[in-house]
Amino acid sequence: MQILCSIPEMQAVNYPAGSKVGFVPTMGYLHEGHLSLVDAAVKSSDLVVVSIFVNPAQFAPSEDLDSYPRDFDRDLALLEKRKVDYVFFPTADEMYPPGYKTWVEVEGISHILCGNTRPEHFKGVSTVVLKLLNIVRPQSMYMGEKDFQQLTVLQRMTQDLNLGVDIIGCPIIREEDGLAKSSRNLYLKGKEREQATCLYKALTNSQKLVAAGELAAEKIIAAAEQLILDSLVKVDYIKIVDGRDLSEVQDIDEHSRMLIAAWVGKPRLIDNMSLKA
Amino acid sequence: MQILCSIPEMQAVNYPAGSKVGFVPTMGYLHEGHLSLVDAAVKSSDLVVVSIFVNPAQFAPSEDLDSYPRDFDRDLALLEKRKVDYVFFPTADEMYPPGYKTWVEVEGISHILCGNTRPEHFKGVSTVVLKLLNIVRPQSMYMGEKDFQQLTVLQRMTQDLNLGVDIIGCPIIREEDGLAKSSRNLYLKGKEREQATCLYKALTNSQKLVAAGELAAEKIIAAAEQLILDSLVKVDYIKIVDGRDLSEVQDIDEHSRMLIAAWVGKPRLIDNMSLKA
Repeated sequence: MQILCSIPEMQAVNYPAGSKVGFVPTMGYLHEGHLSLVDAAVKSSDLVVVSIFVNPAQFAPSEDLDSYPRDFDRDLALLEKRKVDYVFFPTADEMYPPGYKTWVEVEGISHILCGNTRPEHFKGVSTVVLKLLNIVRPQSMYMGEKDFQQLTVLQRMTQDLNLGVDIIGCPIIREEDGLAKSSRNLYLKGKEREQATCLYKALTNSQKLVAAGELAAEKIIAAAEQLILDSLVKVDYIKIVDGRDLSEVQDIDEHSRMLIAAWVGKPRLIDNMSLKA
Repeated sequence: MQILCSIPEMQAVNYPAGSKVGFVPTMGYLHEGHLSLVDAAVKSSDLVVVSIFVNPAQFAPSEDLDSYPRDFDRDLALLEKRKVDYVFFPTADEMYPPGYKTWVEVEGISHILCGNTRPEHFKGVSTVVLKLLNIVRPQSMYMGEKDFQQLTVLQRMTQDLNLGVDIIGCPIIREEDGLAKSSRNLYLKGKEREQATCLYKALTNSQKLVAAGELAAEKIIAAAEQLILDSLVKVDYIKIVDGRDLSEVQDIDEHSRMLIAAWVGKPRLIDNMSLKA
């Protein structure tokens, strides 16, 4: 496994002609969710590149950039075991040098849902992923469905900009009690950890309601709100959208997906599920 | 010479390994300015791609998109003579299909000079060039220095986004009386054509003032304004900037460049010149 700590080093990698390169972008502090993406990439690629970069451009000044967890040595040990070929680990100064001015934005869908609370977030995500794709030059990129809006935004971006890269969404990996794996789960304290499972419970309950014949989005959302009602949890949003374009839906169909964001104590958690399982 | 009228056709072109591909993006209606770029590309490349696409995204609703001159057959005949290998001629519907949402912007320098009068222009230019570069996949792109701000914006974009493409600026090609070649010169009527040379005269006069020892930008600009004063000409701006980042300068040095934009009758013309020739 080669570790490349600068952009020119990564750009200089000469992949053998015709080899299929799979790419997994991460912010490090890897958990089983990330590793499932690496496994998917290894399975379908000749060569696998994983990037580790805590991207300052996707954090607002008020957010947790400085305290975001980091453990590079542990990450490397995990990737080494998984037959990763290249780890790209650039610095923020190299990714955004003095005089940096260029930003890409997927309009509309970057400003709804999580984009309401985090108005610059998806601009930062889109820009860094575009840069990483240009530097790494993969055929496929693997992302978790946990950040479902991110997945949709980046699929739209790569299609609109004719990047010729497949963006492959992979299933959410969960703890035994259903909580979606996230680096931010680390911040959950005391009772918050147990209470955080209410997002999962609200999603599975919604799925059950649909299976039982309830197709009115409004009623399903109201039931989910009731399940999340707790003094430790503050809902940001609970929405049912068309998974293809994130537009809100009134009546459930096979494309409907519930998306939830909520603060559980300090950390803000997100989760989502297809309602027609 | 192959003519490729769709994005998948262009993307499917398999350049021989190791061949150096030069690219000239145009809006068609080719004049000697464009052809000098093609010649530069042919001279330094193994394969040359020219695109012809009148990009709607860089015209404001009030601007001349519909009346912008077009003559595809004449353009093809000119390119055939110059040993161009591929002409890429996509449709607007294919470049911006329904649901298109992604825009790239080089902040700051897209909103000064021509960006004051045309606030969305460079966003449209940056986005279409990024798309074209992704589709055509060249090593070098050739652009005229006439659109000096455009050249600076695109150099910044390709550097910021790690595109690994050289953006090569080529000298302005002029009519015998000094008027910079432009597709829009076609619109000049009657006395406007003669009067349009005042931009060139103001630039060469500024160069002479500097050669004679005048280094105060303010005084040189005032003299240029006097030379352009005419009932047929309405100045948009006359500025002296650092050619590297378009910042305005007070005192002339080797990087100083005068940029002029003015309406001569209906058409808006631009021109520029280094002040230390």
